[in-house]
Amino acid sequence: MSSSASVLDTFTGWAAKAPGAPLEPHSYDPGPLGGEEVEVAVEYCGICHSDQSMIDNEWGNARYPFIPGHEVVGRIVRVGEQVRGLELGQRVGIGWYKGSCMHCHSCMEGAHQLCGSVKPTIVGSNGGFADRLRSHWAWAVPLPDGLDPSLVGPLFCAGSTVFSPLLEFDVKPTDKVGVVGIGGLGHLALGFLNAWGCEVTAFTSSLNKQEEAKRLGAHKVVASTDSAALKAIAGSLDFLLVTASADLDWNALIGTLGGKGRLHFVGIVPSAIPVHVFNLIPRQRSLSGSPVGSPANMATMLEFCARHQILPQVEMFPMSRVNEAIDHLRAGKARYRVVLDASK
Amino acid sequence: MSSSASVLDTFTGWAAKAPGAPLEPHSYDPGPLGGEEVEVAVEYCGICHSDQSMIDNEWGNARYPFIPGHEVVGRIVRVGEQVRGLELGQRVGIGWYKGSCMHCHSCMEGAHQLCGSVKPTIVGSNGGFADRLRSHWAWAVPLPDGLDPSLVGPLFCAGSTVFSPLLEFDVKPTDKVGVVGIGGLGHLALGFLNAWGCEVTAFTSSLNKQEEAKRLGAHKVVASTDSAALKAIAGSLDFLLVTASADLDWNALIGTLGGKGRLHFVGIVPSAIPVHVFNLIPRQRSLSGSPVGSPANMATMLEFCARHQILPQVEMFPMSRVNEAIDHLRAGKARYRVVLDASK
Repeated sequence: MSSSASVLDTFTGWAAKAPGAPLEPHSYDPGPLGGEEVEVAVEYCGICHSDQSMIDNEWGNARYPFIPGHEVVGRIVRVGEQVRGLELGQRVGIGWYKGSCMHCHSCMEGAHQLCGSVKPTIVGSNGGFADRLRSHWAWAVPLPDGLDPSLVGPLFCAGSTVFSPLLEFDVKPTDKVGVVGIGGLGHLALGFLNAWGCEVTAFTSSLNKQEEAKRLGAHKVVASTDSAALKAIAGSLDFLLVTASADLDWNALIGTLGGKGRLHFVGIVPSAIPVHVFNLIPRQRSLSGSPVGSPANMATMLEFCARHQILPQVEMFPMSRVNEAIDHLRAGKARYRVVLDASK
Repeated sequence: MSSSASVLDTFTGWAAKAPGAPLEPHSYDPGPLGGEEVEVAVEYCGICHSDQSMIDNEWGNARYPFIPGHEVVGRIVRVGEQVRGLELGQRVGIGWYKGSCMHCHSCMEGAHQLCGSVKPTIVGSNGGFADRLRSHWAWAVPLPDGLDPSLVGPLFCAGSTVFSPLLEFDVKPTDKVGVVGIGGLGHLALGFLNAWGCEVTAFTSSLNKQEEAKRLGAHKVVASTDSAALKAIAGSLDFLLVTASADLDWNALIGTLGGKGRLHFVGIVPSAIPVHVFNLIPRQRSLSGSPVGSPANMATMLEFCARHQILPQVEMFPMSRVNEAIDHLRAGKARYRVVLDASK
């Protein structure tokens, strides 16, 4: 594979032309390759809940035609002149972000995900439901040996989003950790936390996921809407990771945390959390949130995944049947992540 | 001073006999001294905002007759048989808590303030506006040399409440820290943070406290209700310590925090904080609260205060004029803490 052989004048992806519209083929001129950019030939791309939110313009920041896709795996087919550490032909993954300034305090600290001008892959820019995707070299993270590339895409958004807090908020193997919501993010969190050494409790709205949650790594399963069940475990958890994107009884869930416990959000919950200081002060609790991890955290995650063979549970769809895949997701049927195969 | 010489059949304090009532002399039978208790002859007692809240039964948990007072300094006049590390005649301080179980996980970890059966000094029990106060030995913390005992009382509640988060939430000397509310707690926080090495910003509703805040340790002063001023420092702070007990524009204040910043509550804010995850996730921010510190943290604080000569700014009143002192506090005139002298 050579650089020049792969140059395309236009990129072609699957775009929504209006809020909520089905995706249809759409070509665009990518312009000249930036000096610090790599161009990736997309092999696989996961579908994340936020792709659907952006298709529907739920957050009011989508531009149409809109090409979703930010859980990309593919091979590098072109490299800009200032690219470091990556080579033509190398297989990489790209997640929610595809660039940052590289020189602000956050970037210089290694917290590139907190850069003030961090560049989301699909906000104001074309995503990975396409033949090609470009990224700053720092955000194209090489895959380690021993991970099936067709399954790895979801690790770059869903996976990193739930793995990063374990590093950033110092979760310990001796901790008792809960995971709220067993979907694309939550099912990976169960696997991570089990391998991390924690006692893992899955909180789910549907107890019919009970056996499944245990297979995925949970030691215990609690119904998140059962207030008696929440009271029975009051004060017992160190960390409660919220992957759900629905409004829940937060003060009841905070009640499951012990001293110094933390309620941590990675899911976009629609309404404000009405937290009373009486629920924080006496037991010294915290409430927090975080986005995906930095590139370095992603590399650490991939190494951990390879060692423990933690991979998302995936349903594959040909990219040409992307609308069917999105309908499957919209129907709440994804178990637990849908991945598009760009070769089909 | 001998043990037996100091035994009193009844203790006498200043009690409210109904919510909001003026205090009047009240005697009670303390019962037998517990084996792990010390009995302290009160020399000085600070008045805290929460004494006033309890007099008025704001939190619905006051019992009348109610004797306030939980910033006590005095000398030990009796010791129970199982008391450790303390001696007759020794000068100690007692704050918001006067006991804990000593064997739960929190107590065994040194986080006695998080014990599930921690015993508040004035909730369901008589406080320190009195001639005597009893405490578990662990919560009677000895005064180091070099601190004026007439000024030290407020350190055991106000001081420890703002000092403990610096230890517990790992505030660094390189951090930029804000303090919201320059009253009994906040004025001590300014002094602590200045000596801690931080860049210190005072947030106050009344800019007429500006010069005063700088004298107390602030490098900068911002009006907490001036939204343009808050926007001008957006994203700049690492830690924002809320000592105020009023509802403020929390989302605007969260906006002053940079990446990994923390909004930390030690004041009892009346309403729930309506925090949106969009204000937490992208910049990886936290929101938290904490009570007073553990006995070990208090000892660390006292040593730090002695080294840096950090003491509350105090107005002294004779205990016999306690109602006048409370009126002074209610009128918002205390600069910054009122201390009662039990000898007068």
